[in-house]
Amino acid sequence: MFRTNTCGELRLENAGQKVTLAGWVQRIRKMGGMTFVDLRDRYGITQVVFNNEIDAPLCEKANKLGREFVIQVTGTVSERSNKNKNIPTGEIEIVADSLRILNPSEVPPFTIEDDTDGGDDLRMKYRYLDLRRTPVRKNLELRHRMTMEVRRYLDSKGFLEIETPMLVGSTPEGARDFVVPSRMNPGQFYALPQSPQTLKQLLMVSGMDRYFQIVKCFRDEDLRADRQPEFTQIDCEMSYVEQDDIINLFEGMAKHLFKTIRGIELTEPFIRMPWADAMKYYGSDKPDMRFDMRFVELMDILKGYGFSVFDDAAYIGGICAKGAASYTRKQIDQLTEFVKRPQIGAKGMVYARVEPDGTVKSSVDKFYSQEVLQKMKEAFNAEPGDLILILSGDDAMKTRKQLCELRLEMGSRLGLRDKDKFACLWVVDFPMFEWSDEEQRLMAMHHPFTHPKDEDIAMLDTDPASVRADAYDMVINGVEVGGGSIRIHDSKLQAKMFEILGFTPEKAQEQFGFLMNAFKFGAPPHGGLAYGLDRWVSLFAGLDSIRDCIAFPKNNSGRDVMLDAPAALDQKQLDELQLALDLKDK
Amino acid sequence: MFRTNTCGELRLENAGQKVTLAGWVQRIRKMGGMTFVDLRDRYGITQVVFNNEIDAPLCEKANKLGREFVIQVTGTVSERSNKNKNIPTGEIEIVADSLRILNPSEVPPFTIEDDTDGGDDLRMKYRYLDLRRTPVRKNLELRHRMTMEVRRYLDSKGFLEIETPMLVGSTPEGARDFVVPSRMNPGQFYALPQSPQTLKQLLMVSGMDRYFQIVKCFRDEDLRADRQPEFTQIDCEMSYVEQDDIINLFEGMAKHLFKTIRGIELTEPFIRMPWADAMKYYGSDKPDMRFDMRFVELMDILKGYGFSVFDDAAYIGGICAKGAASYTRKQIDQLTEFVKRPQIGAKGMVYARVEPDGTVKSSVDKFYSQEVLQKMKEAFNAEPGDLILILSGDDAMKTRKQLCELRLEMGSRLGLRDKDKFACLWVVDFPMFEWSDEEQRLMAMHHPFTHPKDEDIAMLDTDPASVRADAYDMVINGVEVGGGSIRIHDSKLQAKMFEILGFTPEKAQEQFGFLMNAFKFGAPPHGGLAYGLDRWVSLFAGLDSIRDCIAFPKNNSGRDVMLDAPAALDQKQLDELQLALDLKDK
Repeated sequence: MFRTNTCGELRLENAGQKVTLAGWVQRIRKMGGMTFVDLRDRYGITQVVFNNEIDAPLCEKANKLGREFVIQVTGTVSERSNKNKNIPTGEIEIVADSLRILNPSEVPPFTIEDDTDGGDDLRMKYRYLDLRRTPVRKNLELRHRMTMEVRRYLDSKGFLEIETPMLVGSTPEGARDFVVPSRMNPGQFYALPQSPQTLKQLLMVSGMDRYFQIVKCFRDEDLRADRQPEFTQIDCEMSYVEQDDIINLFEGMAKHLFKTIRGIELTEPFIRMPWADAMKYYGSDKPDMRFDMRFVELMDILKGYGFSVFDDAAYIGGICAKGAASYTRKQIDQLTEFVKRPQIGAKGMVYARVEPDGTVKSSVDKFYSQEVLQKMKEAFNAEPGDLILILSGDDAMKTRKQLCELRLEMGSRLGLRDKDKFACLWVVDFPMFEWSDEEQRLMAMHHPFTHPKDEDIAMLDTDPASVRADAYDMVINGVEVGGGSIRIHDSKLQAKMFEILGFTPEKAQEQFGFLMNAFKFGAPPHGGLAYGLDRWVSLFAGLDSIRDCIAFPKNNSGRDVMLDAPAALDQKQLDELQLALDLKDK
Repeated sequence: MFRTNTCGELRLENAGQKVTLAGWVQRIRKMGGMTFVDLRDRYGITQVVFNNEIDAPLCEKANKLGREFVIQVTGTVSERSNKNKNIPTGEIEIVADSLRILNPSEVPPFTIEDDTDGGDDLRMKYRYLDLRRTPVRKNLELRHRMTMEVRRYLDSKGFLEIETPMLVGSTPEGARDFVVPSRMNPGQFYALPQSPQTLKQLLMVSGMDRYFQIVKCFRDEDLRADRQPEFTQIDCEMSYVEQDDIINLFEGMAKHLFKTIRGIELTEPFIRMPWADAMKYYGSDKPDMRFDMRFVELMDILKGYGFSVFDDAAYIGGICAKGAASYTRKQIDQLTEFVKRPQIGAKGMVYARVEPDGTVKSSVDKFYSQEVLQKMKEAFNAEPGDLILILSGDDAMKTRKQLCELRLEMGSRLGLRDKDKFACLWVVDFPMFEWSDEEQRLMAMHHPFTHPKDEDIAMLDTDPASVRADAYDMVINGVEVGGGSIRIHDSKLQAKMFEILGFTPEKAQEQFGFLMNAFKFGAPPHGGLAYGLDRWVSLFAGLDSIRDCIAFPKNNSGRDVMLDAPAALDQKQLDELQLALDLKDK
């Protein structure tokens, strides 16, 4: 062992002890005849002092150290005269009597401090140096603690962690697969799993009863800040349960994590909001409930007064921003520009201020009497000082989504989206299907294995678009951290579902025959859910992107710039796989 | 919830309770006016009884159940008149008052019992049914408990579980990689990791200090019983440690697992055997130490008496099988045939019996006097009733390996290899390199990142073949369950190592530049090891193959016969990847 102690553990009560520490040189300062070295490891920073009067050659050696040198120091723990209250080891220092350079370091390409001067590209290329920075390291420590607690909780509830294979079959439905050519089966390919969905269902058929797995999944999609080609799922499935059983158990897990990881005791049951309400009141299936500001529909109140924008609208709705009546014209213009951005796509925005005397002053006063405006005010329960913001459009769902963006923007501006405050809810009763303009057919909103609500099954034949599913998402602070459903366990119902989704019986058999066959041998009722670990860790860490809770993430082109992967293969490897490149643009 | 209790938990003290159970029909028996159903779930079996006199229609419904039907039963817990002492629920039964068929079952293709009539192929095709069998399910439960305990132990020692990427770069050295074409980077490929070796070393450079991961690894090799294309490693690495620190910590982990999983308290330190001794005394770098029977070299004793087979041999050695002098001529012929099999390759075998009077009777008596044979007897410490078996050959290492096989065979025949007895040891001081006849160069015996022993570094220039490494394997019952090494942390030494291994500086930079560059920025001394989880679980489960501790294993052609993977891709997928098949044999 190169050390007796870590750089994070020595305290005043250790004064007088002879110790050996090892770590990285964080900083060197010379003051008078003294040289101070801040020595860093994963556990903390300890000050080491070299005294020129006592041992000049040793001090000289210390003076030649550079940042990020790896050193081993032996010395005596001593009380500091100049105590540092900001760090746990700040009351002591090590008076060194020997120094060994274990490994020198070139000057790092960016400073290894909490706030670094390194840009994203440089940090990713030298990720092993970036990970030395405390904020990044803390994210990985948090991730470790979260997975430990998830496992502890699920183990205590009788779940078995069972590994499912990474080399599976490709299913062209859904997102794009990453594929792996098989050398032993030339011309054939494995796929990397997008999720272990069908395999965990098979584990239920096999009687495993309660399964979980923290597992890598893969999707070959175009990337953005919260997507990576490989990501990690907390994947769970249970038998002989109904929706409430699953929701209760996993709400318990969420509360356990909040308590053990963030020290937050959530005593109230999470809200359970039907999908239809989430869309109606928040314009989103993952509403941020840290603040209310729910939508108020104004069709009855504002239609028919000659304002053609509203008169022709299929939807008019607004939000009430408490205390924002003082917004200047410029601020309101910014909001109008915000909703008119192409990503949001509103045509314009109407606003109304509630004056100190209770009267309402709006941007469309010429069309509306104070009486109508007062009715509107009442609909919002608005008070003097509030600002009402209204959008309208000819597609209700689209307009709601625009209003959702405006609501989130106002929440941010009003400081209502504190990263250390958490609002959790379940969105339930999702529609079974959604219409795809691209495919010109109904698609499964969750996935084709989702169980329709018993009371809606009759509508599968008559009005499939209205069928609701036993599907649920857990949403925290506007982020969908997980979701799941009760699954179909009846092979006939599963076959019907594939039929509605446009599969021929042959295609269904070819792709999912193994599952439908399994259902013929006594499949129990079952259901489950999956959490996105990366997202949940980011949320607990207060990060905007999932990248910084992943040790070695890929960039937006799917590249690992540190490893310089992917890369060309040797011809020999291609030959063994009996593959040839077929490049279009070369 | 479909049940109030599981099929494994009701006892006599629950008598009188109204309960609901759900599970699979294991067996149905009709006796007089009663129908008995054994209801099974993961937790056990509970007897359910239907009484024709009390409720004839219900009993009639029960009579129509088939094996593996999924049912829900409500009834009253009652004391059994005919108790079954073999199962924990054997004192009670459920007197049913309602029965619901949750899902019928076709007749399964093989019987779902501890001993099944299903052959390997059928069991693999219907693996979800095979997993219902108790012995197979118990292996997965064992695996879960082992990984839980591994994590508990390593977490308590300050290790962080850190996920490393699955999509990495290909390194043509070592075993063959599985590769993954990148759609976003046409013509380029990721590789699936053979192990996270270089990434965990980078995590040490990044100051993570103690890392572990239970992680899937991939090797595209031809398969046999104890190999799978994807397998799971317990991968560990530590900084600022020497070999003894790693060995001590992981010996602690092994003892923790023996105690918590198998209930075995190992109090003695594991033997640490130099590789040279393991080869000399057991002809193997993974000796089975459940029994001694160590080799005795006989060159000094048996050479020069006119027996040309021995006189010309480069090695003569034998083992002493206690109490086997009574072996018949036929049994000895079987052993001779055993060592002459092509997989072993010995030319013949000499034997000697120690008679009750202490005289030695050998198969080569005409060449050797009793005096010489007595000397040999003393070398073995052989006693009356013992059987001495001797092999010789012109290549000492090859002959030792043959003698190793003979030793294992004798151990098995004498019942010395009890699967419930465990003998653990560390094999240490491995050679740094081994000569490859195929490649006509030195290869790294462990891997190119292994640190040579400090005292042998000078020999890297003069006699590299004699250099020993800071490398160690943990061996249990003749199975290498894990191995590791102290790593090189100096970029110059690493460059020299690549040079000895025949890399040009350019090739080394191309393949491992990221690691050598990382070493320039303050790499700490570090080392680690990796365990083969599949092997360790098989060992604890007493299995001969790793397959039955894997939920969904591949067959010897790398196929998942249940999923029917790998399979051909849609042309559209190949086009997106800009790849073409280049099949040779079509």
